[in-house]
Amino acid sequence: MRRWNGWGDENFNLNLPDEGQQFLSDRIGEARPLPDATLEAVRKQVPESRLPPHELIDTSADVRIRHARGQSLADWLAMRSGQFGVFPDGVALPKTTEEVRELLAYAKDNNVKVIPYGGGTSVAGHITPLADSQPVLTISLAAMNRLMDIDTDSQIATFGAGTPGPLVESQLRAQGYTLGHFPQSFELSTIGGWVASRSSGQQSLRYGRIEQLFAGGRIETLKGTLDIPTIPASSAGPDIREMILGSEGRLGIITEVKVRITRLPEKESFHVVFFQSWEKAKAAARELVQNRVQLSMLRLSNAIETETQLALAGHPGQIRLLETFLSLRGANDEKCMMTFGVTGSKHQCRSALSEARKYCSAQGGVYTGKYLGAKWAEKRFTMPYLREALWQLGYAVDTLETATDWDNVDNLLSRMENNLRQGLAENNERLHVFTHLSHFYGQGCSIYTTYVFRNGDSYEETQDRWQRLKTSTSQVIVENGGTISHQHGVGKDHAPFLEVEKGELGMTAISSLCETFDPAELLNPGTLIQSRNN
Amino acid sequence: MRRWNGWGDENFNLNLPDEGQQFLSDRIGEARPLPDATLEAVRKQVPESRLPPHELIDTSADVRIRHARGQSLADWLAMRSGQFGVFPDGVALPKTTEEVRELLAYAKDNNVKVIPYGGGTSVAGHITPLADSQPVLTISLAAMNRLMDIDTDSQIATFGAGTPGPLVESQLRAQGYTLGHFPQSFELSTIGGWVASRSSGQQSLRYGRIEQLFAGGRIETLKGTLDIPTIPASSAGPDIREMILGSEGRLGIITEVKVRITRLPEKESFHVVFFQSWEKAKAAARELVQNRVQLSMLRLSNAIETETQLALAGHPGQIRLLETFLSLRGANDEKCMMTFGVTGSKHQCRSALSEARKYCSAQGGVYTGKYLGAKWAEKRFTMPYLREALWQLGYAVDTLETATDWDNVDNLLSRMENNLRQGLAENNERLHVFTHLSHFYGQGCSIYTTYVFRNGDSYEETQDRWQRLKTSTSQVIVENGGTISHQHGVGKDHAPFLEVEKGELGMTAISSLCETFDPAELLNPGTLIQSRNN
Repeated sequence: MRRWNGWGDENFNLNLPDEGQQFLSDRIGEARPLPDATLEAVRKQVPESRLPPHELIDTSADVRIRHARGQSLADWLAMRSGQFGVFPDGVALPKTTEEVRELLAYAKDNNVKVIPYGGGTSVAGHITPLADSQPVLTISLAAMNRLMDIDTDSQIATFGAGTPGPLVESQLRAQGYTLGHFPQSFELSTIGGWVASRSSGQQSLRYGRIEQLFAGGRIETLKGTLDIPTIPASSAGPDIREMILGSEGRLGIITEVKVRITRLPEKESFHVVFFQSWEKAKAAARELVQNRVQLSMLRLSNAIETETQLALAGHPGQIRLLETFLSLRGANDEKCMMTFGVTGSKHQCRSALSEARKYCSAQGGVYTGKYLGAKWAEKRFTMPYLREALWQLGYAVDTLETATDWDNVDNLLSRMENNLRQGLAENNERLHVFTHLSHFYGQGCSIYTTYVFRNGDSYEETQDRWQRLKTSTSQVIVENGGTISHQHGVGKDHAPFLEVEKGELGMTAISSLCETFDPAELLNPGTLIQSRNN
Repeated sequence: MRRWNGWGDENFNLNLPDEGQQFLSDRIGEARPLPDATLEAVRKQVPESRLPPHELIDTSADVRIRHARGQSLADWLAMRSGQFGVFPDGVALPKTTEEVRELLAYAKDNNVKVIPYGGGTSVAGHITPLADSQPVLTISLAAMNRLMDIDTDSQIATFGAGTPGPLVESQLRAQGYTLGHFPQSFELSTIGGWVASRSSGQQSLRYGRIEQLFAGGRIETLKGTLDIPTIPASSAGPDIREMILGSEGRLGIITEVKVRITRLPEKESFHVVFFQSWEKAKAAARELVQNRVQLSMLRLSNAIETETQLALAGHPGQIRLLETFLSLRGANDEKCMMTFGVTGSKHQCRSALSEARKYCSAQGGVYTGKYLGAKWAEKRFTMPYLREALWQLGYAVDTLETATDWDNVDNLLSRMENNLRQGLAENNERLHVFTHLSHFYGQGCSIYTTYVFRNGDSYEETQDRWQRLKTSTSQVIVENGGTISHQHGVGKDHAPFLEVEKGELGMTAISSLCETFDPAELLNPGTLIQSRNN
């Protein structure tokens, strides 16, 4: 069963090997875990529902607890401490777009706030209810999880918006197709959530971001049903798809998603190359993408992430051998690990691999074959479980991510890392901070920074540490030319930082859409743009 | 000098070879040219300007004539007959974004309607002034035609919005770069116009549509300046770029455009393959794009277009040899011509060519090498001059274009062609109608249909013939799952057909943006969405 207070399946645990524990302890000190609240204790806090009764709405405590929070570190601390703060007044699980329409009519009639809920994997507060004088209804799309139609000529598949990653892929795979959208949250996040939050997957280099995959669909709004027809491309005015992408529930509830699918590839493999320095590794990555080498994924870890990954891998003997091998080729302490994937026909894979190795060699890259790449692929969706393992040891872990142009990558990356490293200096706390680049464009790339710190002596102190790190580094990002999010979305946590990026007129444009579709501000208030009433 | 009443440079003429004339005459009969009005006669019609004087505004007759019309067939008939109808009251040629801002303030203060003008190549009535009780000012961006900045790390170039295709490419080429955006209007159309109308170029398969190339820039609006920063990709809410793309002057005037550029390719070549039938040719094209073969362009002519192109090529001896060669390989009357391009590193070109030939062979395609491809490349921007040559013979030519999903291509294509072929049956007039597919996506492709008909005995009759063909076929397009435009935009001519595609709520969304930025409807009224006052 899914954990009520953390990530994923409660029967799955990722253990941190002893070497990993030692590695962390050497860097930021031993830590002490905080006590977890029990589900029983939380149940007692759930207040009476304020919702007028409706047959589609469940107001029981457990379902409201399970839909109250996402997966940000703030959510995690709330769930672990049991201090949820606010619960939705009820949860509906509609089975059809008509039932969603009915629920929206109910919300309108009764002045009820509505939060659409996909997989509950938001790390930016998209689905967290705010304290409100009006009741809050969470509408989960979980029951709308089927492949409804597939057009193999046009390679378009229609899904219920609540279909989670594994069900998207398994239903397509049965017919020889793939969507190819693999965010790290793949296990739980849904196709509708991907659209609503403008998600990007690990193989976006081949398949594109969700913007390129989303072909059309159905959105139930308070003003009626918006059907977006599938058209391969159009010059007929602003693209309505692009207004729904990233709308985060503010314009309506996405109920059906039509996506562009691809035949399952003939071949796929992942490869690892080490470079002597960050400069060389980054130059190789930039050459690969600016020269349009047909890769399906590309990821580049900086020296500290490379060191951390090798330390946490848990096979010290093998790692020592690898490091000796690399050292003989000049890749020592400053070495950086690049993972890349090739996917497609045998011909394409062979051709892309040969080209990629050429560009890597030109920067002195040491090619180590497919072994480590296969390991990456095997563990690609398990990283969120690491938070649980670290938590049990008393460590909190979170990530910050952005994207920027190539000429600004080093500047922004070092400012983010430095800000985090010094963020708890007044507490005399060190942080372990490392970064990878994982989505590449001719123009620039994403920057994904992970930071680990020790819990404070209390939940309040831990929450305070996190808040200071998050706020100050978010400010560093937007003040230095980064987007407030390349792949996680805005939610409530990033909303205060959006205007720096969009500008006053950009915010006016987005607000005007929200006001047009939802003048009473019933839909997901406080998400994406800060509430007009706050 | 540029023609005041037709396409392009008045010293450049494309002659139709005798075989071409015979070919047309055999199919739709001999024709008689209509008399052209003189510039002198048109000058006399230009009324007094109603604009309050402003030092940046030129109100002389010639400049107003030269900015009154685009290049649709309706525009052409108006210019040739001398019946312009409406002229702008003046034309401004600002040199800076500050001057544009000043002109917008002037327009706001004086209740003046504003039409932004790029290269004047619209074929959908974007820049044609409507009869209006208020004065109309056309703002041409022609003086803002420089490469303002280039960042070779991030491969971003900043251009003045009025920079036409050849100046975009020559300024980039001098530094070893290309934008790679080559619409057929390349000679005259501008980078700002491409953004405003969501243009697509002949090599979109490699470089992307303008949506993929437009990285950010500056838009002067009546509410202030909108600066869109360059970010490689973002999940931070709806994308403001996508609201400007296709906004057709309704939200503001684009003054600076930042685009994603690419290093000049090591190698490029174009190749031609003939197929025995449309079915086989289309299957090959679909396989090429759905299997992501790294082509830079792809174009597929149906049997009548293939026949027409060979007849109009003007080398009957060589063509007979080619046809004998093809006939021996089974490609006869129903043969269809495919042109494809490979662009990139030597390795990529070799690899893509080999893969492409494999997919073509699988459908019985007969590869004929690079000769015809080179001919295509040589003439790729001269087609608009053909209208002049046909006009001199008494024929009118126009095109209709759309895009649709693969499962609908044949249905829509044949409905469009049939509707055109029978469109003048009541006049006992035949039409010569042919089609190619020229922009390919996994999901579908564009459909580009050309039709030639004889002028009527008068301009009124010719205009009436065109209007009936245009209106009824546009209706056929939107009622059968096509977009009203894949690459020409909406303008005034397509505005009545937009709602079928966008839906009522989609139109509401677009209108709400227009009302937010321009509540008094001063900016390009009647374009994109029909005027609220009409």
